[in-house]
Amino acid sequence: MRTWELSVPLDEASPTPLFVQIARALAEDIRRGRLKPGAPLPGSRALATTLHVHRNTVLAAYQELEAQGWISTAPARGTFVSTALPDVEPPARSEAPRARSLDSVGFPLDPPLESREPVDFPRGALVLTGGSPDVRLLPVEVLARAWRRAFKLGGQRLLDYAGPQGHPRLRAALAHMLASVRGLAATPDSLLVTRGSQGALYLAARALVRPGERIAVEALGYRPAWEAFRSVGAQLVPIPIDGEGIRVDRLETAARQGIRAVYLTPHHQYPTTVTLSPARRLTLLAWARAAGSALIEDDYDHEFHYDGRPVLPLASADRDNVVIYVGTLSKVLAPGLRVGFLFAPIPLIRCAASIRAVVDRQGDLVAEYALAELLEEGELQRHVRKMRGVYRSRRDALVEALRKELPDALEFSIPAGGMTLWARCAPGLDAAAWSERARDMGVWFSHGGQYTFDGQPFSALRLGFAGLKETELREAVRRMARARPRR
Amino acid sequence: MRTWELSVPLDEASPTPLFVQIARALAEDIRRGRLKPGAPLPGSRALATTLHVHRNTVLAAYQELEAQGWISTAPARGTFVSTALPDVEPPARSEAPRARSLDSVGFPLDPPLESREPVDFPRGALVLTGGSPDVRLLPVEVLARAWRRAFKLGGQRLLDYAGPQGHPRLRAALAHMLASVRGLAATPDSLLVTRGSQGALYLAARALVRPGERIAVEALGYRPAWEAFRSVGAQLVPIPIDGEGIRVDRLETAARQGIRAVYLTPHHQYPTTVTLSPARRLTLLAWARAAGSALIEDDYDHEFHYDGRPVLPLASADRDNVVIYVGTLSKVLAPGLRVGFLFAPIPLIRCAASIRAVVDRQGDLVAEYALAELLEEGELQRHVRKMRGVYRSRRDALVEALRKELPDALEFSIPAGGMTLWARCAPGLDAAAWSERARDMGVWFSHGGQYTFDGQPFSALRLGFAGLKETELREAVRRMARARPRR
Repeated sequence: MRTWELSVPLDEASPTPLFVQIARALAEDIRRGRLKPGAPLPGSRALATTLHVHRNTVLAAYQELEAQGWISTAPARGTFVSTALPDVEPPARSEAPRARSLDSVGFPLDPPLESREPVDFPRGALVLTGGSPDVRLLPVEVLARAWRRAFKLGGQRLLDYAGPQGHPRLRAALAHMLASVRGLAATPDSLLVTRGSQGALYLAARALVRPGERIAVEALGYRPAWEAFRSVGAQLVPIPIDGEGIRVDRLETAARQGIRAVYLTPHHQYPTTVTLSPARRLTLLAWARAAGSALIEDDYDHEFHYDGRPVLPLASADRDNVVIYVGTLSKVLAPGLRVGFLFAPIPLIRCAASIRAVVDRQGDLVAEYALAELLEEGELQRHVRKMRGVYRSRRDALVEALRKELPDALEFSIPAGGMTLWARCAPGLDAAAWSERARDMGVWFSHGGQYTFDGQPFSALRLGFAGLKETELREAVRRMARARPRR
Repeated sequence: MRTWELSVPLDEASPTPLFVQIARALAEDIRRGRLKPGAPLPGSRALATTLHVHRNTVLAAYQELEAQGWISTAPARGTFVSTALPDVEPPARSEAPRARSLDSVGFPLDPPLESREPVDFPRGALVLTGGSPDVRLLPVEVLARAWRRAFKLGGQRLLDYAGPQGHPRLRAALAHMLASVRGLAATPDSLLVTRGSQGALYLAARALVRPGERIAVEALGYRPAWEAFRSVGAQLVPIPIDGEGIRVDRLETAARQGIRAVYLTPHHQYPTTVTLSPARRLTLLAWARAAGSALIEDDYDHEFHYDGRPVLPLASADRDNVVIYVGTLSKVLAPGLRVGFLFAPIPLIRCAASIRAVVDRQGDLVAEYALAELLEEGELQRHVRKMRGVYRSRRDALVEALRKELPDALEFSIPAGGMTLWARCAPGLDAAAWSERARDMGVWFSHGGQYTFDGQPFSALRLGFAGLKETELREAVRRMARARPRR
């Protein structure tokens, strides 16, 4: 035999089968020019002996290499490196194949978008950062049963390709729900099922905005929506808010250069929780009609209203088809289910659905079918009713604890709904520093600066109460009081 | 009582509760100026009598309107239209509220993207249009069990917010699978779980391309990928293909103006099914390194290779971190599960994950957890092995039927893998007309013109054999023979 030796030691412990390791090493040798086109290869028996492997392993490697065209077998003559390969570079001296590092990239690449990776909270942390439901109270068994029924009754059809707009049964159930509890004249045609409200906001923005066009946003607001708008090339225009919600009068000034859309959270303004006043609702709708602007209404937590009934959405008073309504099941059920929706005039829905087909083709029909059944059978509504009571008690417990432990530090209105409380700090109290110090005591909450458009500090706290039990909330507030920075 | 009358007749049959109907009608009357700010409203008892509803219904409507700020109640004095409303227009004569039409839109809007809604095939149709698996053979019970276990074992944590990259357990299982059967040195860090391969292609394109930059594509190829690239502003450059795959020599010419990426299907070229030759693979990798271009390798049906072993991906020979590898579970399991992935150098994965966070925040962790378990337990691999045998027999049945029924009409090579057969038509045979006539006989297949970059006719057929039983394939080919256009 020749003196050629396989230049990669085989690794018995690797998940990569030996025949693949051999084939790759041989291909690499051919690529590097250590084995030239037309050169004979050792017989399978000889190579098996050299490598201490079974002959079948070598045969499998040769078969692989032949299928890839690296080598060819001439009956009775043996196996040879294919002559149809291009010239390859001569091997550099002492160049040994290395394990490949994936830490660099062989082409130009922009940096990632600004990241908001979820925090990996330490075990036992009391987390008030989110406006999320308490997943510990989810009826997991009910969900599991709904999925099982979807697989069983919906069967194989749910696992095939489908249209981009969402399962008709879920759209029908959502339309019914929106008509009966939110005063919206929704039809299955005017609904697009999306991947959560984030997916809805992204698709709406893509449908509306050409790069450079302007979207007005609340100057204290929801950053992930802003990121979606920016990512499609929108210029954002911050509009101040006050105790009645977005300052519609300021919108009129800002609109002189043209505003493609206004993004707002009229029900419980994010993050301040105030409800947009009726006067402003009317003015806003009239302004949008006159300006030819769309209103993107994010009604993320409609069902959670504790004092009186929820205020009906802006979309319910829209007579001019200017409102694009964004909803989600993330708050009423669970964020991880990733089901949200757009309700809008049909031309907008068609446009957003065509973009959806390009972005990720279609939704998960098994999940959509299962959720339709949960809506039809009232399971979701039952869960909401139960949670509304739970969250109201938690809100009250938080309010009581704050009044007891921090009477002079915070000023707030009791939120009429939602899952969070917004509190202004007493003069001189540094909200960011407080939040930082509280983390060391195992309590996590957000401060106002995390919601300002310009990133400037804002002396307020946002306390999410829905995810913690009353005892946990009381303990959290006790620790907050201890963590409070002294001047 | 005053002469004011509620201007909307109540609809007992509507899904909208009566109190909501009343509240909306009153609000509408206020909006239209029929009820002026400060005007007194009828007492609840009187209005209930007038409207023939229970008094509680009127009270609920008033509560709703008060919560919304339309009206206010003065103890002992009664209920009044709020005086904090803006001036509203005088009512137009005989303007009655109408059911709202959602067919128009109150702001400028671009038309939808070119649509590819899935066809609703007539019942009993023999469908050879797709390269899809046979969903009738899916182990639905195995899937249902995996989801049930995910809900049970994964529990509430899977239903919460999470990072955008995909469940670590699924990424680990995919990395192991890619290392052991596809020769890829994948790690969980170098993988991004996506919504099918469409989601992977969209995110890769968004990460790579700035508007106006160029992506080279195969001139006969996969239109949904082109649509994704175009939607992010890419200019597409078609590169001819031949019996060895994409013409790399032509790429070099086209690249004079700069090519950001090449999108290709090296394993089974879409739609011609040829495998990219080893010589071209080497040249292409060397070219990409020199040009600083990315190679987007779409390996959509790696496992389905029938003669010999699958050729290892281009990515397995990539020493310069230029390949972005796109995979999917749509073919090995089911399209409707919407799970695909990107394997690429880590900076690209980080960038694509940051875009994913904006597009739809995160994946469906329940599905990801369930699929991880199916991979770990070898269920998916068992299903693939079984299907490989089934599809091979179907391929052979199709080949035999075509040779028997259409010996002089088509010219084809037996596809070594994949789920489709590509056949050139004999001279003078109009593929599009044939496909059209076959539909009338209940047989659906695609013709070459559906895959050409310029939309020009191309005299070939694409026959998907994986989704039909052997008897169905034979019947389909018999009908094809009858539908064949005569000159």
